[in-house]
Amino acid sequence: MYTLFYSPNACSLASHIALAESGLPYEVRRVNFAENEQRSPEYLKHNPNGRVPALVTEKGTLIESPAILAFIAQSAPDAKVAPLDDPFEFARMQGFNSFIASSLHVAYAHNKRGYRWADGQEALDAMKRKVVPNMRMYFGMVENDFLTGPWVLGEAYSVADPYLFTMADWLEGLGIDREEFPKVADHYRRMMERPAVQKALSVERPD
Amino acid sequence: MYTLFYSPNACSLASHIALAESGLPYEVRRVNFAENEQRSPEYLKHNPNGRVPALVTEKGTLIESPAILAFIAQSAPDAKVAPLDDPFEFARMQGFNSFIASSLHVAYAHNKRGYRWADGQEALDAMKRKVVPNMRMYFGMVENDFLTGPWVLGEAYSVADPYLFTMADWLEGLGIDREEFPKVADHYRRMMERPAVQKALSVERPD
Ligand SMILES: N[C@@H](CCC(=O)N[C@@H](CS)C(=O)NCC(=O)O)C(=O)O
Ligand SMILES: N[C@@H](CCC(=O)N[C@@H](CS)C(=O)NCC(=O)O)C(=O)O
Repeated sequence: MYTLFYSPNACSLASHIALAESGLPYEVRRVNFAENEQRSPEYLKHNPNGRVPALVTEKGTLIESPAILAFIAQSAPDAKVAPLDDPFEFARMQGFNSFIASSLHVAYAHNKRGYRWADGQEALDAMKRKVVPNMRMYFGMVENDFLTGPWVLGEAYSVADPYLFTMADWLEGLGIDREEFPKVADHYRRMMERPAVQKALSVERPD
Repeated sequence: MYTLFYSPNACSLASHIALAESGLPYEVRRVNFAENEQRSPEYLKHNPNGRVPALVTEKGTLIESPAILAFIAQSAPDAKVAPLDDPFEFARMQGFNSFIASSLHVAYAHNKRGYRWADGQEALDAMKRKVVPNMRMYFGMVENDFLTGPWVLGEAYSVADPYLFTMADWLEGLGIDREEFPKVADHYRRMMERPAVQKALSVERPD
């Protein structure tokens, strides 16, 4: 049994969807951001960096979306959600996921989590102003360079897809129309048709 | 033959060391940051995000340190620089590398690359002020939570080690004494004794 610590609509949604696709036995445990539970001593034992996702396994706890996504794929080879037998394709998937984690997601985090990197209202406001142009820039790269289509890696669906879906889901909240990026918008719609996506969303967005 | 695009003492040093450990045939090509070569149309064909490292293989180009490091390890199984047969340990390595890429390295980048996330001198100065405390915080996590010792994963050396070494190498430039983090400092010294580290450094720091 795997236990995923998540917060609704956070980046942990990608791992949640991947678990639902995998066929592995799992449960999800909500971390209450409104009460700062991610910084509680209990939660910091799972992830000293105070973030979701964290995945509890019988061998210990794993952190970081790209690592958890690849672990789920490797633990459920029959689900075929990663190119496990091709190191180059696997690295292409990991490269995409690492780009999301270290560039695209980080650019987004400057909207509401700017205090991680600077103090003072002026700096926080300056960071906020750059979030929309940065997200447009990074989604432009996804659209033109990284999203092979129909799935991120091409014909083969992989755990890079729920990760992209989760990021694309955040665009609306920034006032960016997904249709500015036609391949991304098309990818989002196809993801929405997948039972695993519907299953995870029905838990994270119950109404 | 693999070709690594690097800039001296940038995060690409980790991949450079990993190649030197791997026994794979490789060459390195310097990207001239002073001339903004990382944003030239030629280089953007390798990495649309305009960053080093990029690794050219016969199948195509890979980007992102965590992906390149894992790829090198998988391509050179005899070098034993990753726990390839244990998905949990592999994910622990990838989790550490993703934490470096998305939290620790990103915190460092706010020193000289703050313009990625905000415009205006005031905001850039505010970001600079938080770099040293943030690096102390993240190296505190490495010291107390992530660095099992003697190597990142414990007894087994892996490609997480050159990545940590590369980050620890940057501390001096920020005026932070590595000895504040005794396990990290010890790790750095042991890395310095490895022939592959000496070989990569002799190329990146020729005098
Ligand atoms: N690189 C990490 C980032 C994790 C992350 O930043 N998660 C956010 C939610 S999207 C979080 O837990 N934020 C809580 C906080 O900052 O207090 C990953 O991909 O897992
Ligand atoms: N997450 C990426 C980060 C790559 C990165 O930011 N590289 C820096 C050097 S340490 C770079 O190329 N900077 C050039 C620039 O920003 O123009 C990775 O781990 O490969």
